[in-house]
Amino acid sequence: MLLNRQINSDMGEAVGRWQLGPDEEIMKHIDVANVACGFHASDPVTLHKTVKLAKKYNVAVGAHPGFPDLAGFGDAGRRRMELSEEEVADIITYQIGAVKGFCELEGVPLNHVKPHGALYFYLKNSRSHCVAAYKAIKPLGVPVYGLGGTLHEEVAKELDMPFVPELFVDIEYSKQGALIPPAQSKEITPQESAERARKVAETGSNYAQGGGDVEMPEFGHKQNGGRCKPFSICIHSDLPDAERTVAETRKMVDQLNAKLFPGA
Amino acid sequence: MLLNRQINSDMGEAVGRWQLGPDEEIMKHIDVANVACGFHASDPVTLHKTVKLAKKYNVAVGAHPGFPDLAGFGDAGRRRMELSEEEVADIITYQIGAVKGFCELEGVPLNHVKPHGALYFYLKNSRSHCVAAYKAIKPLGVPVYGLGGTLHEEVAKELDMPFVPELFVDIEYSKQGALIPPAQSKEITPQESAERARKVAETGSNYAQGGGDVEMPEFGHKQNGGRCKPFSICIHSDLPDAERTVAETRKMVDQLNAKLFPGA
Amino acid sequence: MLLNRQINSDMGEAVGRWQLGPDEEIMKHIDVANVACGFHASDPVTLHKTVKLAKKYNVAVGAHPGFPDLAGFGDAGRRRMELSEEEVADIITYQIGAVKGFCELEGVPLNHVKPHGALYFYLKNSRSHCVAAYKAIKPLGVPVYGLGGTLHEEVAKELDMPFVPELFVDIEYSKQGALIPPAQSKEITPQESAERARKVAETGSNYAQGGGDVEMPEFGHKQNGGRCKPFSICIHSDLPDAERTVAETRKMVDQLNAKLFPGA
Amino acid sequence: MLLNRQINSDMGEAVGRWQLGPDEEIMKHIDVANVACGFHASDPVTLHKTVKLAKKYNVAVGAHPGFPDLAGFGDAGRRRMELSEEEVADIITYQIGAVKGFCELEGVPLNHVKPHGALYFYLKNSRSHCVAAYKAIKPLGVPVYGLGGTLHEEVAKELDMPFVPELFVDIEYSKQGALIPPAQSKEITPQESAERARKVAETGSNYAQGGGDVEMPEFGHKQNGGRCKPFSICIHSDLPDAERTVAETRKMVDQLNAKLFPGA
Repeated sequence: MLLNRQINSDMGEAVGRWQLGPDEEIMKHIDVANVACGFHASDPVTLHKTVKLAKKYNVAVGAHPGFPDLAGFGDAGRRRMELSEEEVADIITYQIGAVKGFCELEGVPLNHVKPHGALYFYLKNSRSHCVAAYKAIKPLGVPVYGLGGTLHEEVAKELDMPFVPELFVDIEYSKQGALIPPAQSKEITPQESAERARKVAETGSNYAQGGGDVEMPEFGHKQNGGRCKPFSICIHSDLPDAERTVAETRKMVDQLNAKLFPGA
Repeated sequence: MLLNRQINSDMGEAVGRWQLGPDEEIMKHIDVANVACGFHASDPVTLHKTVKLAKKYNVAVGAHPGFPDLAGFGDAGRRRMELSEEEVADIITYQIGAVKGFCELEGVPLNHVKPHGALYFYLKNSRSHCVAAYKAIKPLGVPVYGLGGTLHEEVAKELDMPFVPELFVDIEYSKQGALIPPAQSKEITPQESAERARKVAETGSNYAQGGGDVEMPEFGHKQNGGRCKPFSICIHSDLPDAERTVAETRKMVDQLNAKLFPGA
Repeated sequence: MLLNRQINSDMGEAVGRWQLGPDEEIMKHIDVANVACGFHASDPVTLHKTVKLAKKYNVAVGAHPGFPDLAGFGDAGRRRMELSEEEVADIITYQIGAVKGFCELEGVPLNHVKPHGALYFYLKNSRSHCVAAYKAIKPLGVPVYGLGGTLHEEVAKELDMPFVPELFVDIEYSKQGALIPPAQSKEITPQESAERARKVAETGSNYAQGGGDVEMPEFGHKQNGGRCKPFSICIHSDLPDAERTVAETRKMVDQLNAKLFPGA
Repeated sequence: MLLNRQINSDMGEAVGRWQLGPDEEIMKHIDVANVACGFHASDPVTLHKTVKLAKKYNVAVGAHPGFPDLAGFGDAGRRRMELSEEEVADIITYQIGAVKGFCELEGVPLNHVKPHGALYFYLKNSRSHCVAAYKAIKPLGVPVYGLGGTLHEEVAKELDMPFVPELFVDIEYSKQGALIPPAQSKEITPQESAERARKVAETGSNYAQGGGDVEMPEFGHKQNGGRCKPFSICIHSDLPDAERTVAETRKMVDQLNAKLFPGA
């Protein structure tokens, strides 16, 4: 722990008059916002408001590009659009550019890029698309956020790009360490989310689906010699109780940092 | 004359498989491209191709933002969308950001911004919208292109922003100096376009609709003491014979520069 | 009163995963649904669900076409799009066709057409556009819903088309009988809405903004000789307390009918 | 041959000011138009114009629904969108409804439905999606056009729906009877297209890619006992020389009918 960017959440997923999630309440507790770019959610006015809201709460702004599929929300696990490598790279450049335009207007840096939903999984499952996407991101010099141990991290390393692995504490992992889709995960309470954050940081293992533990040495304090490894906890802004989950996890992360890094 | 950016044209107005205009042929002759941003025309792949094409021919890239109205092409004089000041500012920031994203990827600077069609005229007719739009552009430090003597130029001056007035040589002006909409202008041949460029530069006046001349001292060589005033000749890429018009005008501009600035 | 179609409300204004308003709760109390068609709100799946929901509660389905402006919700009083007469007629035909497609699939008739928001007001303010729109609707043989005494009713009469005037009970009217935009109206409680329905039906006059009454003889029971004049009460599904407003007004309308038409 | 609907072509694939293909020239020679519905191409004004153009030339109008993917043109073989069965059915109902709206306005019947491009192939490769789509079409009582011997024809039969198999004469077939994608087919001249129409009708076999013949008994005159089997020749409106291909094939089809059905 004791990272600058411990907790991230998807923000700015409204469209025109349609709201989604309690953005302002969540912004109060997170470090990093993954900001929707207008393709799977958002619009120019919403995007600007979201960047201003992040600035108000000193939250770092990242671009969260998705498929051009508003009706389908570019949803993870479905509505995949089989774009070419060139198309994938160009929709990513376009969307990041739009977010960066608002960042520059508001005088905040672009913090990272995190591909959204079905686009994230499309890249995870096709090396050529993943490489095309990452080559479009590389000149920006910002890290990509995503699941460690996947094609995402592998391609980032090959292209010598910074990559920040994510830990999820509000949905389950299998015993083998695979992240469970939200719809198939049991509901995890705010307190349980915080406890998961603690357990992983202190022991390097997490509760597994169905009982028992799953090893996650990459996120463990001791396993990493007490040093800070760059990772980020992702909390879903659209799960029930998101606001309390993020608040409880925030408290726990602050306590952990005070305990593990007393002088910092 | 002898400006860096004498001839500009609207480029990149294709959408997916729908082409519009002979972009590559025109790129060979112009100095500046006004690149459509995906709202009234273009898409991410087209936008990237257009920036690469401009780079290939050493043409400067500007953003050409329009209304979010693909079916209407954000057309001048019609399909006005009565957006609020905030909405106008934000669609402009969004679109410029997208173009700039491709500029940065290709390592070329953003040269300018030129509002497109109905959006241009909306700003020309509403001070509050024009101010909102220009405040969104100002931090970029690039000039806006548009008609001189209008609210556009006035607002740019008030906000201490660079403004490049445009001269049209392929459509007519009224005796009072008002630009005639293309549909109401007589057709002007490529040779006549070139001749108009010459006449204005050498005499500070232009041929007026219906006969006689219209004074344009702001574009005249002598009127400006033989110095270069920053202005740009705009040639429509979608009028008949656009390619030859741009080629003939290019030749004339080069001859004028050789004659008026022999040592340059 | 004692009309078949006393209470109507805007339904199906969700888009993909973005919800808007408690549709099912409101459907339980209304007679007629104005169903969004996919241009200012809705999408094919939402549209189908809404038609099925209306069928479930025996609610008549009308088409509620709007401007092609999802980000702006085709909002009343703003985001007007200055389309040509032909464009207005064709976007209306297109949207009605889509709704009718789902009606036919579900075996329910198309009940009426009601232009939405900014499109409604565009027609209200331009005779040529209103005529073009109504000519596109006329072959369908269904009534248009709208404000009486406006260009809408006038054009309908000229073209010999059925027109159903609407009474609003959840926002105010001026002393002169003009409907007040929701944002400028005081909030009206569910009980007050029901009371307004009663007062208008029994006395032919309504409470006016700022005190006093406004005459509405076209909606009065006695004024119309105790006969049923076809009109419809419109209740906003997106105002606070919409669900209770519609429930209270429903009760009142049923009581009025029992009292005024005891044998019916 | 001697069918009412021998030659079909994709029509109305313009979008706003972007044209695609010489629609009016082709309309003069065909029997059936597959009209784009606004999702992968077209818009309400274009759709209306196309229905009026078909009516002018006495061409039957069918709906040509595609994926909601304008930038990708819902292209065959790529840009597949992995929609659910419900989503596929509903986008089809929506689009057919829109086309039918214009048909009813112009007083022409809806002739058929033909899924477009990537949507066509998505249905061809997934039984559950194909069934969902055909169930949405069935109540309309019109045939579906498509390739015979595929899941399309199989599902149509299972659901007891009319199906019209298509013969292509402007691209190649493999020796096994598989249709070659346009990009991998050699170019076929207008005369060769007409000759292919003749050979298939007279002999029940076609020229195969790479030399030799491919048997097509379902389209042969003798093979079908000299009776008319309902099939339709599809000619691409967007291949080079489309206009001449359709004209030459038209002449040939008329000659064949005169020869094979002298008294008709």
